[in-house]
Amino acid sequence: MHDDFTTIAWTPQGTIRLIDQTRLPLEEVYLECGTVDEVAHAIRTLQVRGAPAIGIAAAMGLALGARTIRETDHAAFCAALEQVGDQLIRTRPTAVNLAWAIRRMLGVARQSRELPVADLKARLTAEAEAMREEDIRINRAIGGHGQALVPNPARILTHCNAGGLATAGYGTAIGVIRAAAEAGKRIKIWVDETRPLLQGARLTAWELTKAGIPATLITDNMAGHFMQRGEVDLVVVGADRIARNGDAANKIGTYSVAVLARAHGIPFYVAAPISTLDLSLSSGKEIPIEERAQTEVTEIGGRRLAPVGMRAANPAFDVTPASYLDAIITERGIARAPYDESLPRLSGEA
Amino acid sequence: MHDDFTTIAWTPQGTIRLIDQTRLPLEEVYLECGTVDEVAHAIRTLQVRGAPAIGIAAAMGLALGARTIRETDHAAFCAALEQVGDQLIRTRPTAVNLAWAIRRMLGVARQSRELPVADLKARLTAEAEAMREEDIRINRAIGGHGQALVPNPARILTHCNAGGLATAGYGTAIGVIRAAAEAGKRIKIWVDETRPLLQGARLTAWELTKAGIPATLITDNMAGHFMQRGEVDLVVVGADRIARNGDAANKIGTYSVAVLARAHGIPFYVAAPISTLDLSLSSGKEIPIEERAQTEVTEIGGRRLAPVGMRAANPAFDVTPASYLDAIITERGIARAPYDESLPRLSGEA
Repeated sequence: MHDDFTTIAWTPQGTIRLIDQTRLPLEEVYLECGTVDEVAHAIRTLQVRGAPAIGIAAAMGLALGARTIRETDHAAFCAALEQVGDQLIRTRPTAVNLAWAIRRMLGVARQSRELPVADLKARLTAEAEAMREEDIRINRAIGGHGQALVPNPARILTHCNAGGLATAGYGTAIGVIRAAAEAGKRIKIWVDETRPLLQGARLTAWELTKAGIPATLITDNMAGHFMQRGEVDLVVVGADRIARNGDAANKIGTYSVAVLARAHGIPFYVAAPISTLDLSLSSGKEIPIEERAQTEVTEIGGRRLAPVGMRAANPAFDVTPASYLDAIITERGIARAPYDESLPRLSGEA
Repeated sequence: MHDDFTTIAWTPQGTIRLIDQTRLPLEEVYLECGTVDEVAHAIRTLQVRGAPAIGIAAAMGLALGARTIRETDHAAFCAALEQVGDQLIRTRPTAVNLAWAIRRMLGVARQSRELPVADLKARLTAEAEAMREEDIRINRAIGGHGQALVPNPARILTHCNAGGLATAGYGTAIGVIRAAAEAGKRIKIWVDETRPLLQGARLTAWELTKAGIPATLITDNMAGHFMQRGEVDLVVVGADRIARNGDAANKIGTYSVAVLARAHGIPFYVAAPISTLDLSLSSGKEIPIEERAQTEVTEIGGRRLAPVGMRAANPAFDVTPASYLDAIITERGIARAPYDESLPRLSGEA
């Protein structure tokens, strides 16, 4: 496999370097963030996106912010750190991993009462780096479990970008694809362009091109046609939130792909880390669907497509019922139905 | 219903006025064509599009060309007219209605041996106008038959543009929608944007806005989501070619909508004139699928979306098997399965 790109990393100077996803796929530009404000801006403007990647960016941003706190008393330091955390959480209040990452960092700070504050600041930078490396290990484990489900050869369809760009690296659904390629399987990828924001055409297409994995871009409405012609062997996608019963929220269009896959007898897999599980929700009906700006549908890149005054709907996600999932691929192994038994077991709750 | 627009018409000066579909939806600009070359250019550059509309434009263009023929001998006149017809047919060789329209006009010329050539020229202009008016009558008849299938109220999903812009006026699938609105039914339309060329977002959205029919634009991958939520009562689309067994070729993405409709128990109707039937084909497997330029997928309006070097597939049509159709709505009534009996009967062949 060709090598590749780094979504986010510490520089030797202690700043954060991240790939600007708003400039992809035409330009591969890296940003350097040296302050909390710069990290917050990068998250807010979608220069870094994807729930796991945002979580890592926030943890690293918090470590940056910690360095500028003047307090030397542990309790005062932690109070100041919480304020920095609140600033980062506010950048995208709905991203679950962001709040989770800040909580984990604050927990480390609070539990390190014995450390001098100067050492604690270094400890936080190390913790953020550990989270970054852990995320890549999780994705490699997902890839390893998932690639066992990929026949050889295989034509795989994916939707949106559940790739290295959405994580600290390697990706979840694209992790399965990368692992199959690394195992020497002859694979070919169908990339749904994923309107309205074109994460497939822009980001997945770019990642697969970089990785040297053969891929063909299609508009979302072509998926059924190629399934009908027998040219799709399996589907693998990511997830944004998975309920206790296995219902999975993911980028709008995922549900349609799942129904089409079922109608053609094609296996449909969701690849996601354990942290995506929300066992507090009994079913996908409880997952709120974010409605985004109509202009994302009526315009592309500021260029108006639809007549002035035309109303548009723009749900950012849909929910695929567990009955359409052939398996959920996690870093701890593969969950099968009934998911309300397999998911709590894998998560360590049951 | 608000009034509206004219796809194509004779001017009082004897020239052809047509709406420039490449400028929609942001500008409503009309072109005036006074020569065969100008008509040929308008067809070639998609300023006029949609198989029935192209047929009418070609017939009117042939009548324009007839006026400039110097021959006064009937046989010599017809020979010159055939050459003009060949020029028009060459503009878009795959459009069935174009060749059909030229054949019909040449037939009129050949059968009018008793007329002085000067009168024959006027006769050809009148014949083209008759074809234009007939096309609108056919569409109104399709609308009348089809609207009986529309409940009140109804939320109707359509794909691509089978509207007044694709015909001499009123439209086929949109004709059904117009007729339901004219019958006083409370309808609301879901408009698939129809990537890659966005005929839904550009043309159907514009037509429905002009007609004052409430409509909401969605990306193609949202159709399943709104079906899942119980917000779609029926689907109606057009067709480009229908085989003897009822298999229907239409704009790419139609098949996916049909599969999704079936999975949700939603009626799926095709609205098309009898001239769309190709009874010489026993099934849709024999319908050739046009593959268009990859740049239609990788670019929008000349703006590149995908990384340089990314391959794309671009089948312009797909084939929906007859088993997914609840009915085919024609100007002569509604055909139901088994279509290899109902379609020949309606066409007058059986």
